[in-house]
Amino acid sequence: MSDQKTALVISAHAADFVWRCGGAIAKHQKLGYDVTVVCLSYGERGESARLWKEGKTLDEVKSIRKKEAEDAAKALDVHDIEFLDMGDYPLRFGQEAEEKVVDIIRKVQPNFMFSHSKWDPYNTDHMKTTDFALTCRMIAQAWGHNPGEKVLGAPQLYLFEPHQTEQMGWKPNVFLDITDVWDKKRAAMECMNGQVHLWDFYTRVAQQRANHFKRNSGGMAGGRDCQYAEGFESIFPTCVDELS
Amino acid sequence: MSDQKTALVISAHAADFVWRCGGAIAKHQKLGYDVTVVCLSYGERGESARLWKEGKTLDEVKSIRKKEAEDAAKALDVHDIEFLDMGDYPLRFGQEAEEKVVDIIRKVQPNFMFSHSKWDPYNTDHMKTTDFALTCRMIAQAWGHNPGEKVLGAPQLYLFEPHQTEQMGWKPNVFLDITDVWDKKRAAMECMNGQVHLWDFYTRVAQQRANHFKRNSGGMAGGRDCQYAEGFESIFPTCVDELS
Amino acid sequence: MSDQKTALVISAHAADFVWRCGGAIAKHQKLGYDVTVVCLSYGERGESARLWKEGKTLDEVKSIRKKEAEDAAKALDVHDIEFLDMGDYPLRFGQEAEEKVVDIIRKVQPNFMFSHSKWDPYNTDHMKTTDFALTCRMIAQAWGHNPGEKVLGAPQLYLFEPHQTEQMGWKPNVFLDITDVWDKKRAAMECMNGQVHLWDFYTRVAQQRANHFKRNSGGMAGGRDCQYAEGFESIFPTCVDELS
Amino acid sequence: MSDQKTALVISAHAADFVWRCGGAIAKHQKLGYDVTVVCLSYGERGESARLWKEGKTLDEVKSIRKKEAEDAAKALDVHDIEFLDMGDYPLRFGQEAEEKVVDIIRKVQPNFMFSHSKWDPYNTDHMKTTDFALTCRMIAQAWGHNPGEKVLGAPQLYLFEPHQTEQMGWKPNVFLDITDVWDKKRAAMECMNGQVHLWDFYTRVAQQRANHFKRNSGGMAGGRDCQYAEGFESIFPTCVDELS
Amino acid sequence: MSDQKTALVISAHAADFVWRCGGAIAKHQKLGYDVTVVCLSYGERGESARLWKEGKTLDEVKSIRKKEAEDAAKALDVHDIEFLDMGDYPLRFGQEAEEKVVDIIRKVQPNFMFSHSKWDPYNTDHMKTTDFALTCRMIAQAWGHNPGEKVLGAPQLYLFEPHQTEQMGWKPNVFLDITDVWDKKRAAMECMNGQVHLWDFYTRVAQQRANHFKRNSGGMAGGRDCQYAEGFESIFPTCVDELS
Amino acid sequence: MSDQKTALVISAHAADFVWRCGGAIAKHQKLGYDVTVVCLSYGERGESARLWKEGKTLDEVKSIRKKEAEDAAKALDVHDIEFLDMGDYPLRFGQEAEEKVVDIIRKVQPNFMFSHSKWDPYNTDHMKTTDFALTCRMIAQAWGHNPGEKVLGAPQLYLFEPHQTEQMGWKPNVFLDITDVWDKKRAAMECMNGQVHLWDFYTRVAQQRANHFKRNSGGMAGGRDCQYAEGFESIFPTCVDELS
Repeated sequence: MSDQKTALVISAHAADFVWRCGGAIAKHQKLGYDVTVVCLSYGERGESARLWKEGKTLDEVKSIRKKEAEDAAKALDVHDIEFLDMGDYPLRFGQEAEEKVVDIIRKVQPNFMFSHSKWDPYNTDHMKTTDFALTCRMIAQAWGHNPGEKVLGAPQLYLFEPHQTEQMGWKPNVFLDITDVWDKKRAAMECMNGQVHLWDFYTRVAQQRANHFKRNSGGMAGGRDCQYAEGFESIFPTCVDELS
Repeated sequence: MSDQKTALVISAHAADFVWRCGGAIAKHQKLGYDVTVVCLSYGERGESARLWKEGKTLDEVKSIRKKEAEDAAKALDVHDIEFLDMGDYPLRFGQEAEEKVVDIIRKVQPNFMFSHSKWDPYNTDHMKTTDFALTCRMIAQAWGHNPGEKVLGAPQLYLFEPHQTEQMGWKPNVFLDITDVWDKKRAAMECMNGQVHLWDFYTRVAQQRANHFKRNSGGMAGGRDCQYAEGFESIFPTCVDELS
Repeated sequence: MSDQKTALVISAHAADFVWRCGGAIAKHQKLGYDVTVVCLSYGERGESARLWKEGKTLDEVKSIRKKEAEDAAKALDVHDIEFLDMGDYPLRFGQEAEEKVVDIIRKVQPNFMFSHSKWDPYNTDHMKTTDFALTCRMIAQAWGHNPGEKVLGAPQLYLFEPHQTEQMGWKPNVFLDITDVWDKKRAAMECMNGQVHLWDFYTRVAQQRANHFKRNSGGMAGGRDCQYAEGFESIFPTCVDELS
Repeated sequence: MSDQKTALVISAHAADFVWRCGGAIAKHQKLGYDVTVVCLSYGERGESARLWKEGKTLDEVKSIRKKEAEDAAKALDVHDIEFLDMGDYPLRFGQEAEEKVVDIIRKVQPNFMFSHSKWDPYNTDHMKTTDFALTCRMIAQAWGHNPGEKVLGAPQLYLFEPHQTEQMGWKPNVFLDITDVWDKKRAAMECMNGQVHLWDFYTRVAQQRANHFKRNSGGMAGGRDCQYAEGFESIFPTCVDELS
Repeated sequence: MSDQKTALVISAHAADFVWRCGGAIAKHQKLGYDVTVVCLSYGERGESARLWKEGKTLDEVKSIRKKEAEDAAKALDVHDIEFLDMGDYPLRFGQEAEEKVVDIIRKVQPNFMFSHSKWDPYNTDHMKTTDFALTCRMIAQAWGHNPGEKVLGAPQLYLFEPHQTEQMGWKPNVFLDITDVWDKKRAAMECMNGQVHLWDFYTRVAQQRANHFKRNSGGMAGGRDCQYAEGFESIFPTCVDELS
Repeated sequence: MSDQKTALVISAHAADFVWRCGGAIAKHQKLGYDVTVVCLSYGERGESARLWKEGKTLDEVKSIRKKEAEDAAKALDVHDIEFLDMGDYPLRFGQEAEEKVVDIIRKVQPNFMFSHSKWDPYNTDHMKTTDFALTCRMIAQAWGHNPGEKVLGAPQLYLFEPHQTEQMGWKPNVFLDITDVWDKKRAAMECMNGQVHLWDFYTRVAQQRANHFKRNSGGMAGGRDCQYAEGFESIFPTCVDELS
């Protein structure tokens, strides 16, 4: 692995990376990481109600959603963003999409990855994206897939926060302080004009997680201050030389 | 909190701390921590079959078990070991024991703690010890318990590896490399003369966990070498400024 | 939504709707609902052992199963029944089937829906039908799917009772009194000539659930009488103005 | 049961009923219910950090906490509030406390009850209160407990929202709209002067649950408006004559 | 262990052993086992509604319940039945009760044991009995408990069927054919005059489990006939020389 | 079913059957069973790192892996081994593969089957193989699939031990003593030249499971000696005439 640290976000729909790990993206860019975002779809069918109500065509919706996502990515200092246009509600997975994502994974060689919760009865695209991400991670690790390429190590897969955590069976085990990049996350959220009602929703999520950060870092007896945080559930165990 | 880093092990029976987190103890002592071990019982009734078969009396069994535990603690460079003599098979919990353990917790002010798995149908002492540890941790955090004393922050509680992991519903999410202190752990295990059959069992556990360490730190593509490791399940989320 | 209340049953095989929610169908028809049943297959391969033993051809089996299902539907006063003939053991899902079911969902605009348990190691068609139902529900909610059509709201999805509840991880949280339509359910079951052994089985199921109804509605102290009931597990939370 | 509808809240510490079901209390009082609150302790040791820092004595802390709870109860129009003074961090359960609570349950004859989540590693008082509530409910149903008294039926037990839902394994299946009594809940929260940092925290909780209310009552296609809501997990199945 | 095979039932209330494992008792007596039943209470307070409604006194209720249990035991050919009179709704556990049960376990040296489900929100006596049974089993295995006595091996603990299986999280993994002793079980049930409504309920349970027996022993292709069965969930793994 | 007892292993990659149930295969061959192994792939892409590092071509890798698997099968006295060459990392499932496996199942008419754990985030091929095995088992039971053929009964599906048991949610409920065929398993493992590091790993697994065998068959009080064992999780309940 080169010295450049990297991370990779696999986002089912164009806006997911903003609400769910926008803070982590901006934070790690600030820490010197190159963060790549892959949007499997533009969310053109299922998450663009306002645009459809306005009578936009499919191409217009895609184009507007793409522009919003690019603007949000810029606000977060994203290193690279790619759109796979795999359809939406539902996503159409398959061998071609797999190979594209495996190529990206191998190119990026991420220190860690992000994707959705394991279960989501509201949106099966989300949970199938996680399954897909795990499969692509596995293929990228295979020495026999495009032999000669650099194979993937064993990066963590962080599941980012879904809309209704308890219904998805999602349980965070890491809280990340994003206070110093909060302005970037808020700015990125404000690029998503079709989902204005979510700006405050995810602001409150960040405030609640900051409270949990304080509680778990010392509580009433020296808990570290934190204004905004994001929570993640890691799939794989970690390997350490010192506990903490 | 003073600059001295500390850790606290709450061990149901005298030998548990050796098999289950002996490596972590030696490792953190080496890293400069002061590690305190609390043995709720000597394991005199349930885990001393050989001594009873030899016709020893209760006091003799306790005395022998205590000596073995002290020797093992010494082999691990344990900072301090305390024996609460709370009975065995079953342990007799209660307010007095609670207060003793809370006093120790507050005195130690651990950066993190260890105890047993949440469920253990083979040995209900183990799972009740974890419940007890959580209660004592909660009391130690209360500003109204012995007001004026320094209250506890929010240390992690690591559940150490039980004998049959899957039956206990225990799932490790942290692997600790203990290769450089392995000799100390093996020496400590060899102090437990009544359970010779476990020396090799827990040596193999450490080897298997080392394999898991390698797999999760990079696998075929750069996984870090590791000869011996211990696994832990953390109860509480962690709070970080950078993911990894 | 129009004033006409509606419900939709997504049944993997032709007979599932009878055993698993026949009472709910008859009851809601009686309450003024229009209930539509979609049978993904006739159950011609996996659930027609008797007919195959008699030497029937595939077309004959399908035809007989269809007739039985139509008769059962009539006995339950079903508003509409549709057969998608998607194959059997296994069902062959895909985009075409999705679009048909989404069209039906949008046409029906159900107040609530029914499908199978989330897990079924005996019959993977059942659990894949539930996954399929969730995906179709999601597509039907998308403003960008066939723009201009009326999109779906957020109907509850009730999982009906599988054959061996505990093996499927199915846990009912609603019991429905079907005493006043029991005769219709029994009559519908008696239309299924290939599965005579199940008539009494599901009669007993209804009696057991009636006992649970009584127990949960007051028990020894005023539990409401109930002779026959059906149990359901709801996937989504409910929204209320008064608890009960 | 008389025509007067009633509800009963079993709150481990004096303030729990405010944060966790204050809206439900005010709402049901407005709907004509008589709601009784039982505070097992004043939360004098574990949840009164500010007072202890100010140097108050135990009796002063209890007295202040009691006053706050009474004021909050008044703000919520609570019908009756009782303090059992069972100790705090930890609560001391036992036969005497059981009998007191059983007497209250039988006197109130609640249509439904509230208590804490089933698991809480941060605060074992919470989870033991739920176990205690279930035991008391069971005793109150026994015809042989104080024969001649009116026995309890089978009221629902709602588990109210804990501080970190995912860590407690709590999953809401009912959302209650509390918009029209929000001012009362906010006023009640503002009576808890020792926990000012929680006023906004639980305001945001109510706003997030309102979003979930909208999402689950129709979402983009006619979801009912809601500004503030509370979520609950019901322990027991419900018994109905019509699904919804 | 002597050649005499034995089994031990730990029943919270006097009637539990009849409904939940009466068939297993009669079957194993027929197979040559000596089956001992321990009733922790008579179920005098919580499960004798009819007697209390008739105005019986506590002693009368206990006496009647004892007589019924003895009659049922006789009908099942029970080898020995013991009543510990530990109170009811709730049971009062403690060191004295533990020692009695450990003495019985060691005397019986059971090949396997029975107790209740791990979770029961309707009846916390049931789930605490299971916890108690596991603790007593552990003590009986301790070489240091009453040294010189024959210690216990590692008998299976079978959890018998609770009233509402899914609510208790109980999942059977063994079905036992009790067809040839069904008459004995029915006769035993008919000894329980206070719970007439359960006779048919548990007859239907046995019929449903027989259906599951057939399904799991071959189904449509050679499933063994079975008229009545009981289901059990085993806590511990089994050790074999041949799979089946 | 003929008198010849049979078993069937469905192994995702060519080597899985060796590490995970090689002992069970040799043991049951010795007991007179005919054991058939189906390898869905050669594991040519994902589990042959050494060969790719050496610059082998795809055909060479497949050929070498096939030879190793055949040698291992011979060492285990496997009755028959078939290779379906369904691709690797990922496996490509589909109707054609289904039909091949169903044909094999019906030809073999196994008394029991083996496959992978239900969940595996490291290797989604494993968990999809289990889903596939359940579907094929279901089709093989259908009287309408290739009518006239002998349909399948209801064989147990044993899930064999994955590499990191706790991460896969795998919990063994049967331990099989393989001491008397250990030499064969070790010899078979030594045929897998590309995965030398696993020889000792799976030797230690067998030793640990032997310890668990002893613990569960009597422990300190008469646990049966055992040097090597394998653990399995059974999916379906068992049907018995006597408990044990």
